Amino acid sequence: MHRVEAGPLRRFTSQIFAAAGTPADIADTVAEFLVRANLCGVDSHGVIRIPEYIEEIDAGHVKPSERPRIAKQTATTGMIDGRWGFGQPSGVMAMELAVKKARKHGVGTVLAVRTNHIGRVADYTELAVRHNMIGIAMTNCGPAVAPWQGMDKLLGTNPMSFGIPAGKEDPIIADFATSASSEGKIRVMRTKGMALPPGWVLDRDGGPSTDPAVLYEGGVLQTFGIRGYMLNLVVETLGGALTGEGVSDEFKGVNGIFMQAINVKHFTSLRSFTASIDKMVKKMRSSRPAKGFTEVLVPGDPERRTMRERELNGIEINDAIWDSIMQVAKRFGVKPQTTGA
Amino acid sequence: MHRVEAGPLRRFTSQIFAAAGTPADIADTVAEFLVRANLCGVDSHGVIRIPEYIEEIDAGHVKPSERPRIAKQTATTGMIDGRWGFGQPSGVMAMELAVKKARKHGVGTVLAVRTNHIGRVADYTELAVRHNMIGIAMTNCGPAVAPWQGMDKLLGTNPMSFGIPAGKEDPIIADFATSASSEGKIRVMRTKGMALPPGWVLDRDGGPSTDPAVLYEGGVLQTFGIRGYMLNLVVETLGGALTGEGVSDEFKGVNGIFMQAINVKHFTSLRSFTASIDKMVKKMRSSRPAKGFTEVLVPGDPERRTMRERELNGIEINDAIWDSIMQVAKRFGVKPQTTGA
Repeated sequence: MHRVEAGPLRRFTSQIFAAAGTPADIADTVAEFLVRANLCGVDSHGVIRIPEYIEEIDAGHVKPSERPRIAKQTATTGMIDGRWGFGQPSGVMAMELAVKKARKHGVGTVLAVRTNHIGRVADYTELAVRHNMIGIAMTNCGPAVAPWQGMDKLLGTNPMSFGIPAGKEDPIIADFATSASSEGKIRVMRTKGMALPPGWVLDRDGGPSTDPAVLYEGGVLQTFGIRGYMLNLVVETLGGALTGEGVSDEFKGVNGIFMQAINVKHFTSLRSFTASIDKMVKKMRSSRPAKGFTEVLVPGDPERRTMRERELNGIEINDAIWDSIMQVAKRFGVKPQTTGA
Repeated sequence: MHRVEAGPLRRFTSQIFAAAGTPADIADTVAEFLVRANLCGVDSHGVIRIPEYIEEIDAGHVKPSERPRIAKQTATTGMIDGRWGFGQPSGVMAMELAVKKARKHGVGTVLAVRTNHIGRVADYTELAVRHNMIGIAMTNCGPAVAPWQGMDKLLGTNPMSFGIPAGKEDPIIADFATSASSEGKIRVMRTKGMALPPGWVLDRDGGPSTDPAVLYEGGVLQTFGIRGYMLNLVVETLGGALTGEGVSDEFKGVNGIFMQAINVKHFTSLRSFTASIDKMVKKMRSSRPAKGFTEVLVPGDPERRTMRERELNGIEINDAIWDSIMQVAKRFGVKPQTTGA
């Protein structure tokens, strides 16, 4: 197990991408997003992705020096062309454009196409929240998930995030896959030798299983119940059909993106809105736990806790993942600044 | 058990509301929405509500002759004041206004306040779908649901619906409570003497139960897992904080409404979009069922099936519900045109 501080890990990550042909500012953005995922405890979207992203560059799928552009826009809507560069700058541009339009007109809606993996969708709704707006971000992805009651790989893990600004309290940041789990989380659990909860995967014969390995032996992810299936189709629609990139197993993109910013001030007073959210957050946290539980949290609390702990104590990265990153680093002649065993 | 045809039931329902002081056009709308809920199999939102709505009129909460108005609007957003009339006309006005704005500007977003119960939220997204738009409808409601891991009644059942237009195939109509169940469904199951699946309710001590009665003895509804909790807070925010009607157990309204119409044509060609949705619907329906299942459906299919069956054979209403409706009808001197025992 390696324990690495966020700052050095960020610089190390950025240097790897820079050495692979990525302009410094883009390399910094990608590194910032990956390490923030680790800080939040979402290790599936953290530096574990470095070798994968480098492979994508090698294969020509990620064009590291390309920058996104606004392909078309109106007063309240927009479409970003990611030009197959790194996904994160496309995601940032999409939400920033949505925020800009919402500032003037109340609601801004921006799609993005030809983007690579944009990482945690919560990063983009947090961006809207910093502007005192409600942020909505969704992205579809390649087929890995079966429809409700089905066993064929026809849907993406299709995550959604909602960010809600508060006043004095922490914002509410909801972020979840519409599958029962992300593929990345199962990958991490397999690496750690853990069993899955029931309802996460089906084996190659369409039967239930708790073994993460079955996913990589012809198995398939499940949606989180029938409601997960419904929401999954919504993301499939907004990210695939509305963007024109295609749906289900004919989706031609990597991430088909839908983002929306809702400007609170356009609809009500910001003060009364944030007072309401503060009250709601406090009511949730102070409510009586059900039997078997010790506390009630709001969405975003678990990530914030982990972030405080990891900013203090560093990020633990297991040997297999660390070795795969070091192999890539060695290839580009990049050395980590500080690592502890 | 009574079996009633939809047409006569609609007229009978409308006549009751008209006799209670509701203008004929509003009475027809309310009757149409209640009976459509029964046709779809969502009996919790059907004519079972007649006695409740009449009580609301008696108590002065529903002002049957009031009509909604547009309180404020911009090019792309709006706010409806329901003036405490029946909720359904407010819901229709909100989505129709959203559609009108989306026709010109791509996305229309309309809130509604001071509305009574608007019924099934799917009715409003279906309205958007008829205009070849994606419809989104959410409403918060009075506190009945506990936060995730909690046991206090702090959240509404807060349903959401998404409607997606197709070409030759049926549209996708997703409609669900962010609680594990609506209160109405549990009411129906109690009436029928059925047990609940686990995870739907906690008893008055915060312990799990499958007895519908515990809900009416100090118990509380649960969210559908942690994701249901996240989405519930989103609806609480859009319906309560953004509308200014208040959140959690301080919500001052009955339904705080958020509706959005997304004009497909604004973003992509309608033909390619509907071709994508058709393809997705077909792929889902023709995919291999998992072990233990015989078919894969798309959201909206179960309601459409029930509707075809009930349009043909009539709507079954159990004696207790029918008697409660007949009591109200008698009071207003209204007689059902046809009923079979």
